[in-house]
Amino acid sequence: MGIAIRGYAARSSDMQLRLFGFERRSPRPDDVVIEVLYYGVCHSDLHGARNNWGSAKYPMVPGHEIVGRVTAAGADVTRFAVGEYVGVGCMVDSCQACRPCRSGLEQYCDEGATSTYNNLDRHDGLRTYGGFSEQVVVGDRFVLKMPEGLDLKAAAPLLCAGITAYSPLRHWNAKPGSRVAVVGLGGLGHMALKFARAMGTDVTLITRTAGKEDDARTLGAHSVVVSTDGDQMAAVKGSFDLVIDTVPYKHDINPYVATLQTSGMLVMIGHFGVIEPPLNSTALMMKRRTVAGSYIGGIRETQEMLDFCGEHGIVCDIEMIDIQQIDAAFDRMLAADVKYRFVINMASLKNDAA
Amino acid sequence: MGIAIRGYAARSSDMQLRLFGFERRSPRPDDVVIEVLYYGVCHSDLHGARNNWGSAKYPMVPGHEIVGRVTAAGADVTRFAVGEYVGVGCMVDSCQACRPCRSGLEQYCDEGATSTYNNLDRHDGLRTYGGFSEQVVVGDRFVLKMPEGLDLKAAAPLLCAGITAYSPLRHWNAKPGSRVAVVGLGGLGHMALKFARAMGTDVTLITRTAGKEDDARTLGAHSVVVSTDGDQMAAVKGSFDLVIDTVPYKHDINPYVATLQTSGMLVMIGHFGVIEPPLNSTALMMKRRTVAGSYIGGIRETQEMLDFCGEHGIVCDIEMIDIQQIDAAFDRMLAADVKYRFVINMASLKNDAA
Repeated sequence: MGIAIRGYAARSSDMQLRLFGFERRSPRPDDVVIEVLYYGVCHSDLHGARNNWGSAKYPMVPGHEIVGRVTAAGADVTRFAVGEYVGVGCMVDSCQACRPCRSGLEQYCDEGATSTYNNLDRHDGLRTYGGFSEQVVVGDRFVLKMPEGLDLKAAAPLLCAGITAYSPLRHWNAKPGSRVAVVGLGGLGHMALKFARAMGTDVTLITRTAGKEDDARTLGAHSVVVSTDGDQMAAVKGSFDLVIDTVPYKHDINPYVATLQTSGMLVMIGHFGVIEPPLNSTALMMKRRTVAGSYIGGIRETQEMLDFCGEHGIVCDIEMIDIQQIDAAFDRMLAADVKYRFVINMASLKNDAA
Repeated sequence: MGIAIRGYAARSSDMQLRLFGFERRSPRPDDVVIEVLYYGVCHSDLHGARNNWGSAKYPMVPGHEIVGRVTAAGADVTRFAVGEYVGVGCMVDSCQACRPCRSGLEQYCDEGATSTYNNLDRHDGLRTYGGFSEQVVVGDRFVLKMPEGLDLKAAAPLLCAGITAYSPLRHWNAKPGSRVAVVGLGGLGHMALKFARAMGTDVTLITRTAGKEDDARTLGAHSVVVSTDGDQMAAVKGSFDLVIDTVPYKHDINPYVATLQTSGMLVMIGHFGVIEPPLNSTALMMKRRTVAGSYIGGIRETQEMLDFCGEHGIVCDIEMIDIQQIDAAFDRMLAADVKYRFVINMASLKNDAA
């Protein structure tokens, strides 16, 4: 017998999310049972629920930016105690044996990490359901400790948006003296600005639309370049060591590659898919530039990121909503009408009749 | 008054190379005058002479893989003595002031390095002419010392093909334990195999055509993968740390990206231009892979490469020809009918009437 749970699920790609009763597994010896307090709403929740990637399995309970409180723990769990505040991100398991897993890079697991939702548990074969629910049951290796002093609701999106922005900056050594540009000011972009600033780099926001200067500076940018202004783009040609491209749709990356100085790197973290218009190799070869991709971060690095946030007082800029507003929130996300992440207060689930 | 020189020049894109008399500048205080003994024939000589890149200025004297003997040196030259064997590669000058130049990366000079031919000298504004000629006059900063014991004629292509293959292997840290793949077996590819092997890596050749196994193993490959064989490509999926892509024309790099393991890098050194079919970012993001470009190497690194060749007894595999055979050689290069570089014996120029 599992644990009876209520959550919100999509039943098909064209239906709104509605209350859904289901069972979680009974805790295994290494499991942590977590009462969900808050969770951030990621673009991939929207893409998943609406089956934009073609891989949706319904009913789907989205949600992979989860902050909660431990309510129970299996016999083998030593790192977590009941009552402790914890986080869960995009993964809840991986093979633990391949080279990436052994290197702390579970997100690149050769067998594929187990996603927090819309996936199958690798032990019992049961569907995984995400954080849009009262409780989650997660193996302790994939549970993160929330540092003290952080606003928990504003910390929830750190578990996906945060680590996705943090990992490439850290991996490719953003540090004082580095010139970093962040392309796009959304959930990922606003976190990239905060992290790049906290790491001591010189930070530029590149955005399609004018008028974001004040917001960008508040978030950490030293300067702002409007990408549709040819003069502004020409002025930063050959400037940056690292460009973090957060744009979540197909777009021309060549103009951003041109802003890299010799040996500079552009990292794509927003758009999965064909790079069109195509990249031109000449711009890479004649300056030894590099184009990379990066995807969330490993568990060890996610904990490091949370601790970094604790030290530097970094959280996300959020708008709190009730779970009943999720469909309207999805629509506003599509219109880029949120600064910068919706977070759902799970207490609102009580507003639905039992 | 300059120095009267004979060489071979292209007069227009559709004409064969013919004897051409011209003047070199009188040596400046920092100049080295070099009697050309041998020079390698690079694909870019062919592209340049036939104006495939649209930037040809005629008459053009190609040649940037030059080995020769010092016959005179300016008053300020201290590192080179008359009689010494030296080399000259793709560059003969650069601004010496920008960040890349100050880092020993003259090939990425912000103002553009001065090419050995088809360019303008940055001091006197006169046309540069390459190694298809009796003598060259080059500033001492851009002259390389040939290590003792190397076969000079077979060492000539090191000055372009050699350093182009060496630099990315060195810069991206190919070492014992690394798994390196080289795509394409031509002038660049055969050198990449030799260097990767000498650096102690595990080396694979990826080639479109079967039947190159024996040659590849002789050159240093531990194994050979035929890229048109789906099973062979599937067997190396996710395998390599570093892929050196030497293919000199437009081609699909996605199948080679798929052979990279987590955090692996593909470096393009052969094809300048649009990457088509376009690259897919998902393959980058889901394994933190990178795609880079690299272009020849700096002067300091070129000297390091030559010294490495001296230590390891590495030269190019060449076919010696007379200068009168250059047009036929160009045609054979287009048909990939050379193992692996033509080198011209400059003594053959004497066969032309004075």
